[in-house]
Amino acid sequence: MKKFINDPKQFVPEMLEGIALANPDTLRYVPEYHLIHRADAPNHDKVTIIQGSGSGHEPAHVMTVGRGMLDGACPGDVFAAPPIDYIIGSTKLLASNKGVLLLVNNYTGDRMAFEMAEEASSADGIAVRTLFIDDDVSVQDSTYTVGRRGVAGNFFVMKAVGAAAETGADLDELVRIGEKVNSVTRTMGVALTACTPPARGAPLFELGDDEIEIGVGIHGEPGRRRALWMPANEIVDELLGAIVPDLPFVSGDRVAVMVNGLGGTPISELYILYGIIHKRLTALGMTIGRNYVGEYCTSLDMAGASITLVRLDDEIEMLLAAPAEIAMRVF
Amino acid sequence: MKKFINDPKQFVPEMLEGIALANPDTLRYVPEYHLIHRADAPNHDKVTIIQGSGSGHEPAHVMTVGRGMLDGACPGDVFAAPPIDYIIGSTKLLASNKGVLLLVNNYTGDRMAFEMAEEASSADGIAVRTLFIDDDVSVQDSTYTVGRRGVAGNFFVMKAVGAAAETGADLDELVRIGEKVNSVTRTMGVALTACTPPARGAPLFELGDDEIEIGVGIHGEPGRRRALWMPANEIVDELLGAIVPDLPFVSGDRVAVMVNGLGGTPISELYILYGIIHKRLTALGMTIGRNYVGEYCTSLDMAGASITLVRLDDEIEMLLAAPAEIAMRVF
Repeated sequence: MKKFINDPKQFVPEMLEGIALANPDTLRYVPEYHLIHRADAPNHDKVTIIQGSGSGHEPAHVMTVGRGMLDGACPGDVFAAPPIDYIIGSTKLLASNKGVLLLVNNYTGDRMAFEMAEEASSADGIAVRTLFIDDDVSVQDSTYTVGRRGVAGNFFVMKAVGAAAETGADLDELVRIGEKVNSVTRTMGVALTACTPPARGAPLFELGDDEIEIGVGIHGEPGRRRALWMPANEIVDELLGAIVPDLPFVSGDRVAVMVNGLGGTPISELYILYGIIHKRLTALGMTIGRNYVGEYCTSLDMAGASITLVRLDDEIEMLLAAPAEIAMRVF
Repeated sequence: MKKFINDPKQFVPEMLEGIALANPDTLRYVPEYHLIHRADAPNHDKVTIIQGSGSGHEPAHVMTVGRGMLDGACPGDVFAAPPIDYIIGSTKLLASNKGVLLLVNNYTGDRMAFEMAEEASSADGIAVRTLFIDDDVSVQDSTYTVGRRGVAGNFFVMKAVGAAAETGADLDELVRIGEKVNSVTRTMGVALTACTPPARGAPLFELGDDEIEIGVGIHGEPGRRRALWMPANEIVDELLGAIVPDLPFVSGDRVAVMVNGLGGTPISELYILYGIIHKRLTALGMTIGRNYVGEYCTSLDMAGASITLVRLDDEIEMLLAAPAEIAMRVF
């Protein structure tokens, strides 16, 4: 294993410290809870939004804390749900008078931790609601889930509720918006290689030199099928062939498209995918209102990508277009 | 080789088409010259800025075309200088009344192509100047260079002259600014893996499972030495140990720091590097005025990173802070 790390056990803390040092004006780091939070949180004019999840999916979620996005992120170790006391501690520390919205990708471990933390926080008198994201069309139940997995489409839920929270929307309204965005968001991914968790030091699963995993999960979970490598056109056709009929997305729909890199795939290849997707969707009679090409939810160093479609309406598009500021930036 | 491509020969055109389709309002694609240019170019109120270089370094430079950055980018094939007629054609098409600034990373092939294109364009009556970037401290002469190589520090030259051009600065002023930024910018990189050019289909060089290449070039050129993998702390010490004394950067300096991923390294690891660098530079008495963590100039799918330092003054910092808009974006 060759990575830019010191001690694998310090992978997450050293990363979090780096994020905080790079954003001294806007972010704070609370090592006790693996918490990265906005320097101005809690802000009692808005609902506090917190996401947990395991580490290893960066920029999700520790690098998506900021104005118009999350107020805080308290990840667990790599691919592990945050401990319950991280969530409770973060919730207590950041709770605003308008309440706390917890965003959770649908994995059994995360659900359990967040549901128990919600209960404990409610008992402490904090108004808390929890929103589950399950955008992955690949498989119904999976290695770590009952129901569908939450993957890169989580970004759109975060962005929409983050924008609405800035306008002062209350907790019920954020839950309505988040559930609505989740309900029109569909994702599927493909792995060209496995990923290597730092503490394991070896690839998480075996994938032959000529093989790809279609429908892979962001923790290396199996997808729909193992296939021989195929050209980008065919990969797009297979992924869209699963995503489009699922909602279904239909002619006349206005959509947002995300091509999300899984960590080891260069952005050049993501734009090749985008070009193909754009033409396929246009041929199906859809209009692409917004596009996102880059890394949003990764699986460590996995080479691969996922495609997400969101059916837009005026409300969702306005929320996605609202300004936001996070650690993941260019300039 | 497993990549998201169709035909390796179409790698660059399909990527460029994807970029153009993703940015219909702001960018245009001219297949004849591999040219991506601003939809509003030429703008006769500003000097036109064009960069060439080989492909395979994305986002550099085809994804850094936009307001406050490049007016156009006309790359060659992967790791190949653009053909002279691409540069001449692009220059003619985008030339503004205020002239054209050509940005060129210092490689022999690129120098030749751009110098000949400058001569031809000048003969056509276009005011053209060419600026060479050579920020890589690793080696003096190299596989493809006389003198030093131009690598990720190129971003700062682009950003500074791009910002100045928006204010109406003339060609001489842009050359002065660009040369100044280049003169205070220093970079060195390290490869954890080789990269695989699509047309070659195999890694460009051999690197053992436990080896790293310190001072690697962005085309896989050898650096200062081949070493066994070492912890991130030691890698940072070795890179900064070459970069800091080179200018030299000294106590009291205010600097910009870039941690640039080479294509296959996840952003989590880049932030681990950033945290270490931040502490080292602070301990040396420097202040970090701006930081950049992400992918700016890659080497296809190479796992690795480079560190760039820029000594700031008020003028440079103001130019770096100016607004800009490019294809590489988050929201």
